[in-house]
Amino acid sequence: MALFEKIDSPDDLRRLPLEDLETLAGEMRGDLIETISRTGGHLGSGLGVVELTVALHYVFDFRKDRLVFDVGHQCYPHKMLTGRKARMGTMRQDDGLCGFPHPNESEYDLFHTGHAGTAISLALGLARADKLAGNGRRTVAVVGDASYGAGVAFEAMNAAKELGVDLVVVLNDNEMSISPTVGSLARYFTRVRTGPLYTGAKREMHELIRHIPFIGDKVDRSLQESVSMVRSLLTPGHVFEEYGFDYFGPHDGHDIPRLVHTLRDLIDRGGLALLHVLTKKGAGCELAASDPQKLHGMKPAPAPKADGEADPPVGAPKAKRPPYTQVFAEKLVELARSDARVVGITAAMPDGTGLHMLAEALPDRFHDVGICEQHAVALAGGMAKGGLHPVLAIYSTFLQRAYDQVFQELLIQDASCVLAMDRAGLVDDGCTHHGLFDIAYLRTMPNTVLMAPSDADELRAMLAYAVELPGTVAIRYPRDAAPPAEGPVPPIELGRAVTLREGHDVSLVAYGTMVPLAEAAADLLSEEGVSASVINARFAKPVDTGTIRASLEGVRLLVTLEEHALSGGFGSAVLEALAVEGVALPPVLPIGIPDRWVEHGTRARLFEKLGLTPAALAERILRSLGVEATHAVGAG
Amino acid sequence: MALFEKIDSPDDLRRLPLEDLETLAGEMRGDLIETISRTGGHLGSGLGVVELTVALHYVFDFRKDRLVFDVGHQCYPHKMLTGRKARMGTMRQDDGLCGFPHPNESEYDLFHTGHAGTAISLALGLARADKLAGNGRRTVAVVGDASYGAGVAFEAMNAAKELGVDLVVVLNDNEMSISPTVGSLARYFTRVRTGPLYTGAKREMHELIRHIPFIGDKVDRSLQESVSMVRSLLTPGHVFEEYGFDYFGPHDGHDIPRLVHTLRDLIDRGGLALLHVLTKKGAGCELAASDPQKLHGMKPAPAPKADGEADPPVGAPKAKRPPYTQVFAEKLVELARSDARVVGITAAMPDGTGLHMLAEALPDRFHDVGICEQHAVALAGGMAKGGLHPVLAIYSTFLQRAYDQVFQELLIQDASCVLAMDRAGLVDDGCTHHGLFDIAYLRTMPNTVLMAPSDADELRAMLAYAVELPGTVAIRYPRDAAPPAEGPVPPIELGRAVTLREGHDVSLVAYGTMVPLAEAAADLLSEEGVSASVINARFAKPVDTGTIRASLEGVRLLVTLEEHALSGGFGSAVLEALAVEGVALPPVLPIGIPDRWVEHGTRARLFEKLGLTPAALAERILRSLGVEATHAVGAG
Repeated sequence: MALFEKIDSPDDLRRLPLEDLETLAGEMRGDLIETISRTGGHLGSGLGVVELTVALHYVFDFRKDRLVFDVGHQCYPHKMLTGRKARMGTMRQDDGLCGFPHPNESEYDLFHTGHAGTAISLALGLARADKLAGNGRRTVAVVGDASYGAGVAFEAMNAAKELGVDLVVVLNDNEMSISPTVGSLARYFTRVRTGPLYTGAKREMHELIRHIPFIGDKVDRSLQESVSMVRSLLTPGHVFEEYGFDYFGPHDGHDIPRLVHTLRDLIDRGGLALLHVLTKKGAGCELAASDPQKLHGMKPAPAPKADGEADPPVGAPKAKRPPYTQVFAEKLVELARSDARVVGITAAMPDGTGLHMLAEALPDRFHDVGICEQHAVALAGGMAKGGLHPVLAIYSTFLQRAYDQVFQELLIQDASCVLAMDRAGLVDDGCTHHGLFDIAYLRTMPNTVLMAPSDADELRAMLAYAVELPGTVAIRYPRDAAPPAEGPVPPIELGRAVTLREGHDVSLVAYGTMVPLAEAAADLLSEEGVSASVINARFAKPVDTGTIRASLEGVRLLVTLEEHALSGGFGSAVLEALAVEGVALPPVLPIGIPDRWVEHGTRARLFEKLGLTPAALAERILRSLGVEATHAVGAG
Repeated sequence: MALFEKIDSPDDLRRLPLEDLETLAGEMRGDLIETISRTGGHLGSGLGVVELTVALHYVFDFRKDRLVFDVGHQCYPHKMLTGRKARMGTMRQDDGLCGFPHPNESEYDLFHTGHAGTAISLALGLARADKLAGNGRRTVAVVGDASYGAGVAFEAMNAAKELGVDLVVVLNDNEMSISPTVGSLARYFTRVRTGPLYTGAKREMHELIRHIPFIGDKVDRSLQESVSMVRSLLTPGHVFEEYGFDYFGPHDGHDIPRLVHTLRDLIDRGGLALLHVLTKKGAGCELAASDPQKLHGMKPAPAPKADGEADPPVGAPKAKRPPYTQVFAEKLVELARSDARVVGITAAMPDGTGLHMLAEALPDRFHDVGICEQHAVALAGGMAKGGLHPVLAIYSTFLQRAYDQVFQELLIQDASCVLAMDRAGLVDDGCTHHGLFDIAYLRTMPNTVLMAPSDADELRAMLAYAVELPGTVAIRYPRDAAPPAEGPVPPIELGRAVTLREGHDVSLVAYGTMVPLAEAAADLLSEEGVSASVINARFAKPVDTGTIRASLEGVRLLVTLEEHALSGGFGSAVLEALAVEGVALPPVLPIGIPDRWVEHGTRARLFEKLGLTPAALAERILRSLGVEATHAVGAG
């Protein structure tokens, strides 16, 4: 660790001679493997870009120049070089470093990101602002090959030329994003990588092309124009050149001297440049390279865990329980076997959503479209019109990317489709990955049916119910273990809640994951002599006003509970529905996620911080009732 | 009209000999021009595809085969051929034909659309379902060149090959979408159109390529592979071929016999085919062809109107008043002149949003990115980080396409950006174009500030205020004339409402366009002896609970009024905010758009239908109060 010990900033790095950088990168790689094997995280992505990151910081000064990582999970070596190496062991821990770039941590992190495909747009915006300011800053965007397939990346490439700026886009092609990259673009990358037209031969070709016999003879165009066109067509990476980017590569992304020289050349050239580098995800770590999907960290999930061994659900006793994801996937396979209309779609998350089980069981009924949520939803709309009943398994936060397709391609068409929203609620990764807005953004639109299960059996029943229901149905569930059902699950009925217990002081109306917490809080309240009814709402739309209304008879407080933003969420839906019916409301205590960004941390710790534990809930309810809490709650 | 008179269905069309089709198309064109000149609508797009539409219906039987139009505004000739020619005169009128495809009208319209870029995904979904069903149906998607630039279209092209289906995508290239198509793809299309490699020369070239001297000599690859690669590179449209589509064209889109033969060939070939046709928007109509933007119908607006001559606002006396769009654009130019940070961005709507004024005044500070809302928002995020203060002028409904970028690239970054949401509320075009969800989908996320003006001066003041405020601010306003201010506008203060009048029976809390309606309703209520306070809320977030609370003292009813979906909207925000503060609520009457799709019709007529007139409002309020209405309200 002789070299890296002395590197506390990119300034230190730039004082090293070029020939030392490979040794430095080796040290960093060792450090990174050692650290992440303890903390968990996106190891593979980081390992792949150690050399690239070193080269970038060697050539540019990103206190004034601009570095934008797409997604951001490849930023670990960047964090190590920019004053955070001592804190790498806190990665993704409570109050530790974030697993993504974060401006709160460093002036070297410009954006806090986590969703794919937007780096080119962001970089173009920066470059345009800098150009107007005339400040001479240079801009680099680092984009993975899978991100490059997102529609927004295409939009940015297509619109780049118009802005008249200088920009270097580094296409970090690791031939393997989270899952093997799908789509024709991935095949194109492979062809460029393996094709006959390697960079070395490029210059020779340009010479030779001038001697191709037919140009000028057969075609009614000037020689000059024809040569220029054929020339650009024969360049590897010509697709990029259609967008006005000069293409360079493919280069070995682990060859630091060559990267340094090329980046310096690109600065001198100016204009739009695409530098295609080939890297190996998990380079230098045998396990990471051989099983990149596992080492990616089950992105965007926390430290790797085998599917069957999730943490116990928040507020529940410790015991091994299957994650909701697994419950969903197993049930989906069962439903697909018995119903030929059922197909599964994922946008690059076959493992994270459990849909790999469907891929194995019924490969013909499984579709992974890559990081293309918009296409995934619109494809589902077309399939539904064709008589299928697609189940789109998607993280709540990533469904935001396809909001307009949910609107037009599903809801307006009254398409029969199930949106299985995994990672709904709090996750470990922080505000870019929490799924806290889906109730609000879906319920505002007509024709939506929104459900959330409170245990494993209820999820199974809801999924079976949803694939029978015409129209678009969304089911949200968290990245957490599913509590087992206590007794048989009452049948699912559209817009019907279930009263779990009756009480006369306070009514607790809970949605999804908050149901067991509400029950635990009711137990504590009971010890304080407060009688609480508990309703498992099941549906956020339509709201079961009848059941809720009945529970309000004589009570002094209505409490709504949800793992979702309070603004526009489930509690808001309940208030709204009761108001429309002219119900006279008791005082209301809405419990959920407050109107601010929730940073990263373990799910259990985040629940604590937000006061979403049985004891904290009971205390807040007692306070609202004006009841003094005794020992039982205070100590809970 | 000898031929077209006899055509009532595609079956009739298919009974004609091929040589009659050109005459038929000519008759249809005349008919279309005559009709649309009376009704208004998307004339240019329809005229461009008359021959293409005839050819498609001649070759396919779209009762079983599948035809998907992208956007859908080019569907007029399709409607004329599919049993609706007698109703063409009702186009976009109240209770008349919809200006877009609509399954309620015809079995030939599969999807009701209006937002661009999704046809390929929808068609792929249909083709996949049909393939699983083994029913032999064929699928065609018709996509305009501007739509083709939307990210979701790229995602679909990229993912198509994997599905293993047959699909014909017709790229309708009219060299001019609404505004001249921007972006590198547009330049690429132009190169293909005008390049040396026309289809006629294609076969010869393939022969010749085999004799290019260097292949096989210089390159370390098999001859076969090299030839195949060079061959594909020399094909016009090779970019499409990278996606696994066989490219055909460019063909004259007005040459029916050739289109018919080509389409038949494509059916026989199977697989993925892209047919590039060149059409002239507004073909056959001199005015439409020479000024396509105007004849597009100020898409997606109703019949062409000069900017200065909008209808009077709903509920206001008839007088010439500038549209909100114009008020916004003029003020933006003024602000941009005095503040170098201010730049304007539009996604293909320079005229619709008024931003063409900025383009003329300060071209360097204006950006049109094409139909790429995602990129537009992310670009704004980058610009904001670079120190600019971008103003994104966008229709409320189209901002849905960039929801995730608003989340990640603006709000999480705390980017200083103004979202100027035009067409917020009801428009003439129907449910794909109404802007009825923006309050709900924006307010659920932290860091949003939401405003709406109630008159022209307030819009000016809000825009000036918004470009000074750090963070992301959304301002919504309708496609309507802006009432002039009555007296000076009180300064805008964050989260502060304005009490317009005080009353003791009922409190009317109105947002944006509903303010003048609330005042008019209050006048009527006063005639009934009911005293109503009227509050101009100005902000949907943060809600001014203090002012609202004060107005509730002793009143018997709280009425919230908004031109937005009731689910999760402004009224919901008010209830939520009051509940959090523990305010004891009187009965509440939430007025807004109910939870169902609102179809097309004139804005005034839609307001009537939805009971959003002063008289209807007063009547509903009286009913809620249990007061019998007298003559004044009943007759209103």
